Amino acid sequence: MQKILPPATEDLAFVIGPYQRPIARVQPGETFQVSTLDAFGNRIDSPDLDLTKIIQLPYVNPCTGPIFVEGASPGDTLAVTVGEISITRDYAVSCLIPEFGGLCGTVYTRTLNEPLPQRILLHPIDKSGMIHDPQLDIIPIPAEPFYGTIGTSPAIEAISTLSPGFHGGNMDAADICPGNTVYLPVNVEGALLFVGDGHAAQGDAEVCGVAAEVPTTGTFTVNLIKGNAISTPRVESEDFLMSIGSARPMEDAARIAFYDLISWLAADYGFDRIAAYQLCSQVAVVRVANMVDVLYSVVAKFPKKYLLRGQQVTGN
Amino acid sequence: MQKILPPATEDLAFVIGPYQRPIARVQPGETFQVSTLDAFGNRIDSPDLDLTKIIQLPYVNPCTGPIFVEGASPGDTLAVTVGEISITRDYAVSCLIPEFGGLCGTVYTRTLNEPLPQRILLHPIDKSGMIHDPQLDIIPIPAEPFYGTIGTSPAIEAISTLSPGFHGGNMDAADICPGNTVYLPVNVEGALLFVGDGHAAQGDAEVCGVAAEVPTTGTFTVNLIKGNAISTPRVESEDFLMSIGSARPMEDAARIAFYDLISWLAADYGFDRIAAYQLCSQVAVVRVANMVDVLYSVVAKFPKKYLLRGQQVTGN
Amino acid sequence: MQKILPPATEDLAFVIGPYQRPIARVQPGETFQVSTLDAFGNRIDSPDLDLTKIIQLPYVNPCTGPIFVEGASPGDTLAVTVGEISITRDYAVSCLIPEFGGLCGTVYTRTLNEPLPQRILLHPIDKSGMIHDPQLDIIPIPAEPFYGTIGTSPAIEAISTLSPGFHGGNMDAADICPGNTVYLPVNVEGALLFVGDGHAAQGDAEVCGVAAEVPTTGTFTVNLIKGNAISTPRVESEDFLMSIGSARPMEDAARIAFYDLISWLAADYGFDRIAAYQLCSQVAVVRVANMVDVLYSVVAKFPKKYLLRGQQVTGN
Amino acid sequence: MQKILPPATEDLAFVIGPYQRPIARVQPGETFQVSTLDAFGNRIDSPDLDLTKIIQLPYVNPCTGPIFVEGASPGDTLAVTVGEISITRDYAVSCLIPEFGGLCGTVYTRTLNEPLPQRILLHPIDKSGMIHDPQLDIIPIPAEPFYGTIGTSPAIEAISTLSPGFHGGNMDAADICPGNTVYLPVNVEGALLFVGDGHAAQGDAEVCGVAAEVPTTGTFTVNLIKGNAISTPRVESEDFLMSIGSARPMEDAARIAFYDLISWLAADYGFDRIAAYQLCSQVAVVRVANMVDVLYSVVAKFPKKYLLRGQQVTGN
Repeated sequence: MQKILPPATEDLAFVIGPYQRPIARVQPGETFQVSTLDAFGNRIDSPDLDLTKIIQLPYVNPCTGPIFVEGASPGDTLAVTVGEISITRDYAVSCLIPEFGGLCGTVYTRTLNEPLPQRILLHPIDKSGMIHDPQLDIIPIPAEPFYGTIGTSPAIEAISTLSPGFHGGNMDAADICPGNTVYLPVNVEGALLFVGDGHAAQGDAEVCGVAAEVPTTGTFTVNLIKGNAISTPRVESEDFLMSIGSARPMEDAARIAFYDLISWLAADYGFDRIAAYQLCSQVAVVRVANMVDVLYSVVAKFPKKYLLRGQQVTGN
Repeated sequence: MQKILPPATEDLAFVIGPYQRPIARVQPGETFQVSTLDAFGNRIDSPDLDLTKIIQLPYVNPCTGPIFVEGASPGDTLAVTVGEISITRDYAVSCLIPEFGGLCGTVYTRTLNEPLPQRILLHPIDKSGMIHDPQLDIIPIPAEPFYGTIGTSPAIEAISTLSPGFHGGNMDAADICPGNTVYLPVNVEGALLFVGDGHAAQGDAEVCGVAAEVPTTGTFTVNLIKGNAISTPRVESEDFLMSIGSARPMEDAARIAFYDLISWLAADYGFDRIAAYQLCSQVAVVRVANMVDVLYSVVAKFPKKYLLRGQQVTGN
Repeated sequence: MQKILPPATEDLAFVIGPYQRPIARVQPGETFQVSTLDAFGNRIDSPDLDLTKIIQLPYVNPCTGPIFVEGASPGDTLAVTVGEISITRDYAVSCLIPEFGGLCGTVYTRTLNEPLPQRILLHPIDKSGMIHDPQLDIIPIPAEPFYGTIGTSPAIEAISTLSPGFHGGNMDAADICPGNTVYLPVNVEGALLFVGDGHAAQGDAEVCGVAAEVPTTGTFTVNLIKGNAISTPRVESEDFLMSIGSARPMEDAARIAFYDLISWLAADYGFDRIAAYQLCSQVAVVRVANMVDVLYSVVAKFPKKYLLRGQQVTGN
Repeated sequence: MQKILPPATEDLAFVIGPYQRPIARVQPGETFQVSTLDAFGNRIDSPDLDLTKIIQLPYVNPCTGPIFVEGASPGDTLAVTVGEISITRDYAVSCLIPEFGGLCGTVYTRTLNEPLPQRILLHPIDKSGMIHDPQLDIIPIPAEPFYGTIGTSPAIEAISTLSPGFHGGNMDAADICPGNTVYLPVNVEGALLFVGDGHAAQGDAEVCGVAAEVPTTGTFTVNLIKGNAISTPRVESEDFLMSIGSARPMEDAARIAFYDLISWLAADYGFDRIAAYQLCSQVAVVRVANMVDVLYSVVAKFPKKYLLRGQQVTGN
C-alpha cells in the first residue's frame, strides 16, 4: 500500500490550490495511506510554549498534499472513502488561542475588549484510546478520530488550509470519519487532494476553536465519478446522505447545505424538490461542524431510511 | 388534575406578555394538564384551503395561557417538567408558506424573486403513532411529540408567539419533550406561562418553516427556584444540560447558548469558565432548533457524564 | 399649539404597543409640540454616576406617548412631518455602556472577554449650538438634532423602545430631522405615536451605542394617508425618497430597505421593478443608522432627481 | 510615463496572489498609467448576449497586474495615489446576473425560488461625461469613475478578483477615486499590485451587483511606507481618514472598519482608543461599498476636521 508522508517543512501545504507540485499520485480505486501532522505542525509538546511563536499566520494547519488522482478532470467528482485512522502520538493538544474561537472577539468579529489569555493543554491518550484531561476530574473521552481538513484544489484560487468552502477544506465535520465517503469537486486535472487536521475528539461547533489535535496515519480509497459535478462537499454514511455548507453568517452555511441536500434527493433519488424540502423539515438532522473558522460549516443530513422505497437499496 | 383548555377564540394568546388576564392558576409542585391548538388554530383540515386566509399575521400560533404560578416573583426561575404529551387529532398538518422558511426570500431576507407556491399536506397518524405521508412512498415517521412554543412573560414587552427569545417562546427545540425540565425566567408576578405549537415530528432546523403540527394535551409540573435568575432558557434531561440561544445571525444564537451553558457549568458544577469553554470544544452537542423563525434558536448541550465527578450525582 | 409633555415617571413609555392609555389626542393636519426626555430619562448629570444604577433594563429610553391620532385606522399610513427641534438642556450626555455597542461583546454577540469599562461624558452645548468635548481638543461639533426613536403601535405586540422594527422605533436614523416627513404604518385605531431619544449629534452607525443624548421639544404635523399600508418606515426629504430596514444581520436590514424603496418606486413613480433595482445600483445612497440596537437599521435613499421626469414634481 | 496594459487573454489575472509573473515593475515615487478591461473583459457589446456564456466563474473581473513595486517587502505598506481616470469606451455596461446581487438568492444565500432573469443594458456616455439610460426617462448620471478592485498579493493565498478582503480586492468602494490615496498591505516581495473593475458610476451597496462598468486608463503613483504593517485597507482623502472592512455578515465588515479606524486614530493621531470610539459615535461617516460580493465591504470614515488640533496639519 502506498504511504504518503507529509513533505519537508519548506514544502508543507498551507493553502489548497493548484500551485504546488503533487507529492504523490494515486489511481482511481487505489487504497493508500496518508500521514498528517497536527494543526500546529506537531510543534506543541509543552503547555508552557508561547503560542504567538507557534501560530504565525498563514503558516498554520499544514496539510499533506497535493495528491494527484490519475484521470480526474474538471467536472468530475472525487469520492474519498475514509478507512482506519491511527493516532500517531500518545497525546492530543488543545489550546485557547487569543482572538480565535466562538466566544471572543476575533479578526472578523472585531472588538475592543482585551483578548482572552492563551492556554495550552496536553491530553494523554491511553492504550485503550481514552483521552484524559489532566486538569479536570472528569471521566475520559473516547478517541473517535476524524479529519478536520480535506479538500480538492479550486481551479485558480489557493485557499488557506484554515478555511472551508465549496472545495471542502477546513470543515471540522466529524462525519469525515472511518467508514464514510466524502464527495469533493474536481476543478483541475488530477483533482489535487489535500488532507490534514486530525482530531481525536471534537464537540459540535468546536466552540473554543481547537479540538483534541493529533497527528495521524489514515487509510483512504479514492474513486472517480466522471462528469458529475457537485457544487459543495457531500458525505455518505451507512445511515445518512449529508451535504456540507460553509459560509458566514451561519444560516447561509445551513442554506447551502440544505439546498444541496434537496438537490441531491431530487437528482439521484426521485424526489420532487418541494416535497424533499417539506420532508427535510420533518426528518433532517443538522450538525454545526464549526463556528470558529474563516467560514462556518454546517452539515445537513437526510436519514437514508426515508428515501423513497424504490431508491433505498442502490445508494449513490 | 387541573385541566387547562385553550381560551375562546377571541382570547387566544398570540403574544407572550403581561397584558392578558391569566386563564388558570397553579401551585408550585402542582401537576396539571394543558391542551393546545395547533399552530394554525386547528383551522386546516384540507389540502385545498387558501393559506393566505388562514395565516393572517400576527394571529398565528395561538398559545394556551397565561398560566399564573402562585408565588413566582421577578428574579425567580420557573422549572417546568414536561410529562406525557397526547396528540389529540388523527392527522398532522404541514405546509409550505410563501415567503416563510429557511430556503426562500422572507420578510427579513427580502428578495425580488417570485415566492414559492403554497402547499398543504395532511399527514395521517395511525394508532401506533406513526406519521404517514400520503404523497411519498417512504417508511412512516414515528411521532415524538414536543412543544415548539413555551415561555414566560417578559416584564413589559409583549412578544409575538412566533418569536423565540430570552423568555423562551417559539424555539422549536425538540428537547422540550416528555421527561425533560425547562427552566424559564420569571419577570412578572406569577411568571405567566404560555404553551403551544405541538409538533408530532420535526427535523433539526425545521427547514421549510413548518413541522408536523398537531393539537395536544400535555402534562406539566411546575416548580420555583427562588431568587436564581437565569438569562436564557435552559433544559435538563437525564443525559444533558442544555442552554438555548435565540438570535440572528445564527452564530449569535450559538454564542448565547454556549455562553450560558459555560456560565451554568461554572456557577453550579464547579468548573472554571475557561476550562469549561475548552471542554465544550471537545464534547458539546449542538442542535439547530430552528432557522426559520423571527429569531433562530440553537441548543448547546453538555453531556452530564462529563461533569466533574463530585458533581455528577446531585443534578441541578 | 397643543403641547404634549412626557407623562409622570410611573407612566413613561418603555414599550411601543397598544396597552398604554393615550396621553394626548391630535387631529390629522394638526401641528403640535412634543417634549421628550433623553434616553436616560434625564437622570445623568455627572460623569461620576454608576451607570448600572441608571440603566436598568427594560426601563431605558422613555418615549413620550402614546399620542392618539383621530381617524387613524389599521391599514392607513401616518405621515409625520418633523418641524423645529429645540434642545432643552445646555449639555448632551454620551456614555460607554459595558456590554453594549458595536465593538464589544453584547447580550447578543456573547463573548467571554472582560467587558469594556463604563464611561460618562457631559458635553456642554453653547449658545451657538456647538457641542464641546471637554476631554478632547477638537473643533466643536454642530448640533443637528433629530429623533432616534419614533414609531407607531404594533397590533398586539409591545416592543421595547430600545428596538427598531417595521413599526419604526429606535432606528437612530439622522434623517428623522427637521423638514423631513416620516411615514409609519397604522396597526391600531388612533395609530398611537411615540417619540423620544433626541440626539444633538450622531455619527453613522452610532458605533459606541450612544449619541449626544438630549431632551428636546419638537414640533410635529401629522397627516393620514387612508388605506395605503406600508410595510416598513419611509422618510421623504426635499431630495430623497428613503426606506428604512431594521433587522439582523445587517445585510437583511439593507435588503428590507432596498426592497421597500424599489416597491415604492414601482408603485408610486412608474418604475418597472427590475429597472428600479438596476438604477438603484447606480445612484442609491445608503446610511447605516445604527449597528448597536436590538436590530440594526439601514436607510436606502433614492435621489429624487432621478425619478422619471414626469414624476418629479408631484412627490408622494 | 510607463503605460501598463492588460496582458494577453490567457494571462489575465482572475486571482490576486503571488503565483503570476509580474507584468511590469515600478519604483517607489513613480507615476504610471494602468489600463484596465471592464469586469466582463470588455466582452459585452450588445444587450442580447447570453450572460451565461460571458460569465463563466472564476474567469470574471480580470485585473491588470501583478505590478512589482521595487523595494517593497513584507511588513511594509503600499500607498497608492489615484490620479486621473479616463473612461476608454463610449458606453458603460450594467447587468442583472441571475443568482448574483443583493436582493435575490445567491450561491451563498441559497434559496429554492426561481432566479431573476438576466438583463443587459448598454449606457451611452456622452462627451460631457454624462451616462444615459436608454430605457428610462431620467436625467443623466454624471460619470465619477473609480476602481472597484485594487489589491496586493497575500503571502500564499490566491484570492478571486471577485472577492475583497484584508488585501483589498473587489471592495467596490467609490472612495478609490482620483485624488485619494489607498494604503494596502505588503505581504510579498514587490507587493504585487492588481487593479481593475473601473466603474463610471455606482450607488452605495451596488445593490443589483453590477455598476456602470467601463474599461479605463488610470494614473497612479506608488509610495512605500517601510516597516509599518496595516491590517486592512485604508484610504485618505483631503477630508477623511477611512478604513475598509470586508466580511460577512455586514456588521463584521463594519466592525473591522471601525476597529481599524480607531486603531489608526490612536496610533498616528494621539487619541485614546476609548475616546476615539466614543467620538466616532458622534461624527463618523459610513459607506456601504458593496452588499453583493464574496464579502461585503464597509468604509468607516473619520472627518479630519475632528482630529486633535495639534494633529490636523501633518496628515498620515
